[in-house]
Amino acid sequence: MSRYADYFAAERRRHIEELLAFLRIPSVSALPQHAADVQQAAEWTAARLDRAGVSGVRVMPTGGHPVVYGEWLQAPGKPTVLVYGHFDTQPADPVELWTTPPFEPAIRDGRVYARGASDNKGNMLVPILAVEAMLRVTGGLPLNVKFFFEGQEEIGSPQLPAFVAEHRDLLAADLVISSDSFLWAPDQPQLLIGLKGLAAIEIEVKGARSDLHSGLFGGAVPNALTSLVEILASMHQRRPGGGAGRVAVEGFYDQVRPLSPEDRRRMAEVPFDEAAYAAELGVDTLVGEPEYTPVERLWARPTLEFNGLWGGFQGAGIKTVLPNEAHAKLTCRLVPDQDPREIVRLLTAHVERHRPPGVKVTVTRPPGNSWPYLMPADHPGNRAAHAVLTRVYGKEPYYARTGGTVPVIPLFLRELGAYTVGFGFASPDENFHAPDEFFRLESLDRGLEAYCAYLDALGETL
Amino acid sequence: MSRYADYFAAERRRHIEELLAFLRIPSVSALPQHAADVQQAAEWTAARLDRAGVSGVRVMPTGGHPVVYGEWLQAPGKPTVLVYGHFDTQPADPVELWTTPPFEPAIRDGRVYARGASDNKGNMLVPILAVEAMLRVTGGLPLNVKFFFEGQEEIGSPQLPAFVAEHRDLLAADLVISSDSFLWAPDQPQLLIGLKGLAAIEIEVKGARSDLHSGLFGGAVPNALTSLVEILASMHQRRPGGGAGRVAVEGFYDQVRPLSPEDRRRMAEVPFDEAAYAAELGVDTLVGEPEYTPVERLWARPTLEFNGLWGGFQGAGIKTVLPNEAHAKLTCRLVPDQDPREIVRLLTAHVERHRPPGVKVTVTRPPGNSWPYLMPADHPGNRAAHAVLTRVYGKEPYYARTGGTVPVIPLFLRELGAYTVGFGFASPDENFHAPDEFFRLESLDRGLEAYCAYLDALGETL
Repeated sequence: MSRYADYFAAERRRHIEELLAFLRIPSVSALPQHAADVQQAAEWTAARLDRAGVSGVRVMPTGGHPVVYGEWLQAPGKPTVLVYGHFDTQPADPVELWTTPPFEPAIRDGRVYARGASDNKGNMLVPILAVEAMLRVTGGLPLNVKFFFEGQEEIGSPQLPAFVAEHRDLLAADLVISSDSFLWAPDQPQLLIGLKGLAAIEIEVKGARSDLHSGLFGGAVPNALTSLVEILASMHQRRPGGGAGRVAVEGFYDQVRPLSPEDRRRMAEVPFDEAAYAAELGVDTLVGEPEYTPVERLWARPTLEFNGLWGGFQGAGIKTVLPNEAHAKLTCRLVPDQDPREIVRLLTAHVERHRPPGVKVTVTRPPGNSWPYLMPADHPGNRAAHAVLTRVYGKEPYYARTGGTVPVIPLFLRELGAYTVGFGFASPDENFHAPDEFFRLESLDRGLEAYCAYLDALGETL
Repeated sequence: MSRYADYFAAERRRHIEELLAFLRIPSVSALPQHAADVQQAAEWTAARLDRAGVSGVRVMPTGGHPVVYGEWLQAPGKPTVLVYGHFDTQPADPVELWTTPPFEPAIRDGRVYARGASDNKGNMLVPILAVEAMLRVTGGLPLNVKFFFEGQEEIGSPQLPAFVAEHRDLLAADLVISSDSFLWAPDQPQLLIGLKGLAAIEIEVKGARSDLHSGLFGGAVPNALTSLVEILASMHQRRPGGGAGRVAVEGFYDQVRPLSPEDRRRMAEVPFDEAAYAAELGVDTLVGEPEYTPVERLWARPTLEFNGLWGGFQGAGIKTVLPNEAHAKLTCRLVPDQDPREIVRLLTAHVERHRPPGVKVTVTRPPGNSWPYLMPADHPGNRAAHAVLTRVYGKEPYYARTGGTVPVIPLFLRELGAYTVGFGFASPDENFHAPDEFFRLESLDRGLEAYCAYLDALGETL
């Protein structure tokens, strides 16, 4: 029993009521008609921080949806952590698939059902309530805490990079703690130490002035689709038995930091049943670089995926056209120390080098690139979290990575020089971005206990 | 001056009036609301044949638009020719781009402007008027003539194969003469001796149960687009400098009849400026099999063209999806002696052989396949046409081929055992299938003279 246990037991009903109030605000950042609701969620957050005993609370404009900042800096000589989260939500469509309305939170079987319950309102409320508890129970905090919550995470945080760069001093911290994180499973914690980055290009191939008759012109005039297929096929090596293996773009792996024996050992500890995984996805085998295990490929090896491809006739039946235009969209997921700008340059050079004769090829660079991220597994922030999670869950957390991209985390590292520990209590089965999103109330309890213990531990060890 | 010259001069105004009446019937076979007009054009044709002195004229049902048959078989011991053409037209859209309404024929500068003027009503009226002239001037014909006109050419003649197969005896002939043909240029005749055939397949690739997140699953789960690109890229050899060369489908060339030195000599006689051709199409170079000239590739070498390709995300911006479905449509143009059924079999086997691991690949076979066609250049039907066209135009016709496909011509060869001579007087600049289609009245004059001379010559030499 922690020293906050009685307090949390006494306040539990109020905490849940506050979560329900927060969830009633339909702060959907993607829909312009909900902009005022996002603003309202910011103001709710600011008021809640203020009431918790946090100082200097303010709603700050970004050019898009606002951010909320607050601080408690009364521990001189102690380290500073920046707690991150977001108060915006995904849209609720399709609303008809929800058991109860998405913005009328309902409790069933110890779960709160609402859009944003798990991603991220339930999770971001936890550190606010934890800090409030520590201030009320002990009168202070063992370290300095800043809160930084945003309202545009679900639309890719378009204004955040500029905002963070302009407010480096305000946000400066020794460690970022992200509440926008999740467990491996409801009873199995994890420490997410690695994220992939992203580099995107689009390719347009143009042949003749117009589509042509495939009979009258075929065999002599360049076909834009054939040309695009030639370019795209040059981008992967074939595995011995067929299927895409290594990326064949010249220089693609030059900046990749090799996996250490320790990296590979940690990834091998994670349970992964290749046959069951393939079967669940509906494929009869996995593909990719044969020299790496599937977990290594998924988590720690860079990839190149075609996201979209089109040209010529897509209707029913046959149309004997020789298409003069073809398009592809592709993205690479990057690992340390790949630089997304360098990868875009290499991709562009590769496409130009493999341009077939007779066609024009244009490469464009859509926005959305992101840096890869890797935090040392033995960083003090991880060591403290490992001890706390092991005690709260009775199991050691996995050291996990993901092939997904969370641009804000490498952004904090590049702008603030601070690593981010994901310290969130969502579970992967809680229907993020889907109908009937929910948050387990037991995660609220465990999260509050864990956050208090984590801040206490960081005050000692960071 | 031929012995019919005075007659044609005297009847010229009437002939033109008759053509205008024929053109006023909006016999658009593609549009259901014009079905009665197609029927009316059939009846107009039948009445006109009857009036010309042709016997046994009948409008015959096919299950779709009707055909018209008539015969003059009073030359026992003489050969029989079957004159082919079609009385249906393309749609007239976009009507607003016509100078005068498409079904209100107008004469300007010696040209009749109307939908169907050149393709094929003007041209199909010529042999009817020629036979009428010969019967009126000489009282008979030098050989037996059958007329066979259809009303569904512009929609791909769906019922014609069954009709011809069921009426082999009725249609039996030593030679087919197609009025649905054209000159090389208004003052340059040609003999079209070769057509390509067609074989089509569609490929569907399916990977995982659903589209997946490219970060969470990329690098280990098969991407349907990557798999399709791998299959398609295997279908062509690369030329030394890049670009598609020979078709790489196993067995694809096994049935191809090699080009003889005589074949290549005839194709080399046709004027072809490769640089000007490429410039007009807007490409900086031509592609295809390096061992053959562009004319040989266009006319006499089989090809494999991708007509359509799609999968994944086609919208604006980036969507980091790992697509689970991808589609391609492709057609091959075939040359003698390739069998379209065998080519479809080879394509299917190739796709199956090159299926990458982890995906399901389905090949479907849309209807529309066609046999290639090649007529001996020195066939008596060509020799007689060569002599007549040389006299009428003052220039020897080219022996031409086309990469296009005209299914009715190989159909006549397979079902009736008769080659087809294209004997039509349209010019390539007459806006077939486009606004302001027209027919030159001088082509009516030359065509009538040429048809009478050709039938006279065939009566002697066939």
